[in-house]
Amino acid sequence: MSLIVAKFGGSSVANKERVFHAAEMMAAEHRKGHDVVVVVSAQGDTTDDFIEKINEINDKASNRERDVILSAGEQISMALFAMALEKLGCPVISLTGWQAGIKTDAVYSGARIKRVDTDRILCELDKKKIVVVAGFQGINNADDITTLGRGGSDTTAVAIAAALKADECRIYTDVDGVYTADPRIVKSARKLEEISYDEMLEMAALGAQVLHTRCIILAKKYNLNLEVLSSFTGAPGTKVKEVMTMEKMLVSGVTKDENTAMLTVMGLEDMPGAAYKLFSMLAAERINIDVIVQSALKGEVRDISFTVPLTSLEKTMEVLKKAQDTMGFGEVLVDDNIGKVSIVGAGMADNPGVATKMFEALYDAGINLKSISTSEIKVTVLIRREDTKKAVEAIHNRFFG
Amino acid sequence: MSLIVAKFGGSSVANKERVFHAAEMMAAEHRKGHDVVVVVSAQGDTTDDFIEKINEINDKASNRERDVILSAGEQISMALFAMALEKLGCPVISLTGWQAGIKTDAVYSGARIKRVDTDRILCELDKKKIVVVAGFQGINNADDITTLGRGGSDTTAVAIAAALKADECRIYTDVDGVYTADPRIVKSARKLEEISYDEMLEMAALGAQVLHTRCIILAKKYNLNLEVLSSFTGAPGTKVKEVMTMEKMLVSGVTKDENTAMLTVMGLEDMPGAAYKLFSMLAAERINIDVIVQSALKGEVRDISFTVPLTSLEKTMEVLKKAQDTMGFGEVLVDDNIGKVSIVGAGMADNPGVATKMFEALYDAGINLKSISTSEIKVTVLIRREDTKKAVEAIHNRFFG
Repeated sequence: MSLIVAKFGGSSVANKERVFHAAEMMAAEHRKGHDVVVVVSAQGDTTDDFIEKINEINDKASNRERDVILSAGEQISMALFAMALEKLGCPVISLTGWQAGIKTDAVYSGARIKRVDTDRILCELDKKKIVVVAGFQGINNADDITTLGRGGSDTTAVAIAAALKADECRIYTDVDGVYTADPRIVKSARKLEEISYDEMLEMAALGAQVLHTRCIILAKKYNLNLEVLSSFTGAPGTKVKEVMTMEKMLVSGVTKDENTAMLTVMGLEDMPGAAYKLFSMLAAERINIDVIVQSALKGEVRDISFTVPLTSLEKTMEVLKKAQDTMGFGEVLVDDNIGKVSIVGAGMADNPGVATKMFEALYDAGINLKSISTSEIKVTVLIRREDTKKAVEAIHNRFFG
Repeated sequence: MSLIVAKFGGSSVANKERVFHAAEMMAAEHRKGHDVVVVVSAQGDTTDDFIEKINEINDKASNRERDVILSAGEQISMALFAMALEKLGCPVISLTGWQAGIKTDAVYSGARIKRVDTDRILCELDKKKIVVVAGFQGINNADDITTLGRGGSDTTAVAIAAALKADECRIYTDVDGVYTADPRIVKSARKLEEISYDEMLEMAALGAQVLHTRCIILAKKYNLNLEVLSSFTGAPGTKVKEVMTMEKMLVSGVTKDENTAMLTVMGLEDMPGAAYKLFSMLAAERINIDVIVQSALKGEVRDISFTVPLTSLEKTMEVLKKAQDTMGFGEVLVDDNIGKVSIVGAGMADNPGVATKMFEALYDAGINLKSISTSEIKVTVLIRREDTKKAVEAIHNRFFG
């Protein structure tokens, strides 16, 4: 008998048919004698509808009140899921975030889970019930409802699985696993049977939309057996875990991100803390900095380049303008025609030829590199955006073709 | 400085304009220095939409899970109301039933409020915030969400007002008070400035849709200053209270109820407990019995007539069929062509001529009476349904014309 935590995303519970399909899968596990905790997101477009409703009344509404409304989406879908299980003859109970003991910090609309008080969930599991928990939400010290921000429901599932020491944590989604590249671009892309936490983390950070980085970090911390699989087929997906059972693959996947812009700050004074000062001003505005490249010293100054999400470009420019006044650097160059392509693989560290193989593939495809950055388990290049898909195909063919 | 509890029904918060209109009224009270607690229902058709959603998945879903979804309606509207107040520059916080300390029994979908733990509400009022509370919902001993059934939001408002010893409890609705008769039928109907709890109770029980009996009983118990008024105009409505400041009116109003059927059980054995047995079987199925008339003894047996809501007729017949087997009475006559018309007035008890005056009005209008029943403060007649409106007009003209 295992304890299984399973999460279903918005598209996996979008309508009656999908709800019953998911409920049937869970009922089958329960009939086998397993303990089952289900975490659900809000149905399909519910959240968008709520946001529209909110903005109609007050587009500057407090996050505290926004969370009250947004959390209702999961509250509704968890009860519908429970009702489907009731119809299938399963003992079941639904629990909101506060009922399920999901304790968070006080940051409305972007709360972090501090702990899961598992008493109620365990009590219901003891009664042999399937427990359906609302994802994406929790409660803070003041007894107020919080929501967890992007990737919230995945994080809820992993946090509950960790707290319950679950045997498995399954993330049911609308794709059937993690691929070596986006299968919509690369026809020969193939599903990975397994991937390490670190690789998955890099893949997620680099644009693979399957899992959110927060939940992977948490899964790694608790060494949780995580699996990404399709809610449509229920077939085995991709297992994310620490120890690879098969031989380390050189490269696990190729990712791309077309939501990127590169900025170059010219003539930054060469003094301790200059870069720190610059990046902390950006961090204070919650702008995610990626690929940072610093030029060699030119006299007393140096240039520093970095990428930001294209959607943060405007805000980044505002911050840099203010910084220019106090820090006194020179011109800021903007390149908003950027595609970011990366290879990720735990085997890379021991195989120095991997990066070269990647560059060779890009050279053969006639693609020019604007910047290169590497880590233990990934190599990232910045190229022209229109070359992105071609680059992914070329690299994927070289490693997996 | 007063403490005001104000309740807004579904039509009073149905859309952006209505929400802001109601919020403006509350903001104005708050600016005057009053403490304000607002209780809101779900917006317009939200509840109907939820019920449709539920029935699509499982029309036999448990009431426990139904309440989880239904309560989301008030959760959404309370936060929207709070957001409107934020936009108007008012300090405000919204609280769900469980956050506001509304403790109920465990009867899902028809829970009774046991007590209100006012700590959180008082704490927020101390911070000079307007507190917006979700109506219609509470929490039971198991920390599960309950809903209060029909008239629930009114009951929430009255319970909170009682617990806080509020100076006023205002029920804002889509009519501007309690009338001497339904103004849609009787053009000359006029608004009552005030009415006693008992009269209001009879009026409500007899079909006046303005307030639910539960909340009137509660208001009477705590001697609360209750007022029914229009959320559209905000003009003074009808005050419901114990002590009448003006001379007792002979008759406060004329009510009608066209959702009625009359049954006559023939040949019920004349033994102790026969009627009790019969009515307790009906009560067990939650069938509301009204007007009961028992015939004189005919030999060893007697006939007994009573009315039930037309919508309960089918179920009543089922119960009576079963009862017939065990109790052995004779035929059951059904008359589903029934209109119920009543006059209510606290002054009636001291004025024996009131009932006569009513019968005279009906006689002059050529309306035949099927049954008569009286109490201290009301007289009810059963007539043919098609005569209902004519009867209301005739009686109203006689007393108020």
